[in-house]
Amino acid sequence: MKNAVKVAVLGGGSWATAIMKMLCENLDEVGWYMRNKTAIAHIEKEKHNPNYISAVEFDTSKLKLTSDINEAVSNADYLIFVIPSAFLETELKALNISLENKVVFSAIKGIVPETGLIVGEHFHTNYNVPFENIGVITGPCHAEEVALERLSYLTIACRDSKKAEVVANSIACEYINTKISDDIIGSEYAAVLKNIYAIAAGIAHGLGYGDNFQSVLMSNAIREMKRFIKRVHNTKRNVNNSAYLGDLLVTGYSVFSRNRMFGNMIGKGYTVKSAMMEMNMVAEGYYASKSAYLIMDKLKRKSKTPIINAVYEVLYEGKDARKTFKKLTEKLD
Amino acid sequence: MKNAVKVAVLGGGSWATAIMKMLCENLDEVGWYMRNKTAIAHIEKEKHNPNYISAVEFDTSKLKLTSDINEAVSNADYLIFVIPSAFLETELKALNISLENKVVFSAIKGIVPETGLIVGEHFHTNYNVPFENIGVITGPCHAEEVALERLSYLTIACRDSKKAEVVANSIACEYINTKISDDIIGSEYAAVLKNIYAIAAGIAHGLGYGDNFQSVLMSNAIREMKRFIKRVHNTKRNVNNSAYLGDLLVTGYSVFSRNRMFGNMIGKGYTVKSAMMEMNMVAEGYYASKSAYLIMDKLKRKSKTPIINAVYEVLYEGKDARKTFKKLTEKLD
Repeated sequence: MKNAVKVAVLGGGSWATAIMKMLCENLDEVGWYMRNKTAIAHIEKEKHNPNYISAVEFDTSKLKLTSDINEAVSNADYLIFVIPSAFLETELKALNISLENKVVFSAIKGIVPETGLIVGEHFHTNYNVPFENIGVITGPCHAEEVALERLSYLTIACRDSKKAEVVANSIACEYINTKISDDIIGSEYAAVLKNIYAIAAGIAHGLGYGDNFQSVLMSNAIREMKRFIKRVHNTKRNVNNSAYLGDLLVTGYSVFSRNRMFGNMIGKGYTVKSAMMEMNMVAEGYYASKSAYLIMDKLKRKSKTPIINAVYEVLYEGKDARKTFKKLTEKLD
Repeated sequence: MKNAVKVAVLGGGSWATAIMKMLCENLDEVGWYMRNKTAIAHIEKEKHNPNYISAVEFDTSKLKLTSDINEAVSNADYLIFVIPSAFLETELKALNISLENKVVFSAIKGIVPETGLIVGEHFHTNYNVPFENIGVITGPCHAEEVALERLSYLTIACRDSKKAEVVANSIACEYINTKISDDIIGSEYAAVLKNIYAIAAGIAHGLGYGDNFQSVLMSNAIREMKRFIKRVHNTKRNVNNSAYLGDLLVTGYSVFSRNRMFGNMIGKGYTVKSAMMEMNMVAEGYYASKSAYLIMDKLKRKSKTPIINAVYEVLYEGKDARKTFKKLTEKLD
């Protein structure tokens, strides 16, 4: 279809590549910013991202690739950020264009370490983006399955339902079902928290707990997530919808999840530092567990989030994983 | 500990064997009825059940094994039935002792095909057991993990909380945490329904749907389960507790679940008959899907249970799995 609005994706990883694939199903032109110039040259010539879900073939006539973030932003009305939260601020430092009149969607699922804020709040507070221009793309979705065109469901959240629909219509296709929501805060926190619970699942697995315990852990995690997001943003929501419970499950049960893998190494006895070095990347849930812990601590609601506390204590206070999780098991039911 | 009450387990399968193991952690005498005389002789001599989770070693001085159901029943106050629901009535036909003064717990998780009732209702209606003497043992628990002494959580439901506590105290041990509940109807239906959802998960997997869809299916399944059990027994419950959501997850995500395996074969193109023959056993969810479908049909609430309907149509109406599940995907979110 002819673009109703100009869209640009910012990021070059697997989730960014998957979102580009969806957008190209519908739009005749999509901006795509990534830092890596070699990757851009490769995509332009070979029609594949060389580094991530490289099986996806692009119709390059639709792509407006650039390694200049200002060019990408100035040419688009809708920006979809898919840069890991740990690197977001570094990338945004190069920006000399205001975001005030842009519609900013986040598909990041992390907490910005510099500010301790979820991405939507970060854009609102630090870049003056009004809340009605902020959106979230979330849902249980491994990028690898998008590459394989396996049916996936995404939730597009924005307080302005028309903007949510613009994005939903741009990515919905034969293998992507979309749903819109107005719960940007809740769905973004859910996407952040699920990474912490995936670390917890990994730690438990690494320590030798089995599938029976894993299901109890997930059943407690969704109740804990509900308490957490109700406390930070109390609105009517069904936490068993795909954007919350579905997202928790696809990550917590995935053996491919970086967060679960990181937790698994910790459970098996790696130190935090050696697990990170071994994985050669940082699991989003590592930062998220600190931020989430501090939020609950500040609100004096720590007693309501035993799983987050246990992950925080193991990762940041050097507590013994076996003992900490043994204590945690007594708080679950 | 010295037995506070006389307990007997009825059944010789893996879940019965696992429950016997738990009881033997606490009690100095436990009755154990099973039909198979060869298995009894083997257990008495070799201290292991030859056919199921045979790694479990019993202190046979505690066991009162018998192949006579009347002997087992007459010697016990608390009966724990762990016979597959499809064979329950056949076994009970041999019974010539009244159950009216017995406390009857079910660990069966199925619908009695002859009456279309869950086990608790079946004992109440057909054996005059008052509801305050009926209980359910449920929870996310593979018997194999009990054998390995991996931490598991069970919910013991009975309207009379003292009786629930008797059973809970008899099975709680280092690797079993227990919780009591008064929701016998809801927790038993949940245990039944989860097998249908595991069949659905298997069918979807067999058809080629991936992990993204699986998580959406489970997220819809728990909402459907909530609507179903609220309709048949409206009481205050949190469907995200382990007995409901946890039980759904441990089965739906298990590659060892018979129900999931059965569904998987259907999804891959086996007929119902050939899948059953190939597995050499009947998946509980096969009967459950018919009973659950008929219950909702009778209550004119079929529109609320699209997953149950899809499984029923594939298994009983010979509908094409691919087309039926394609239609189902449009009803999920």
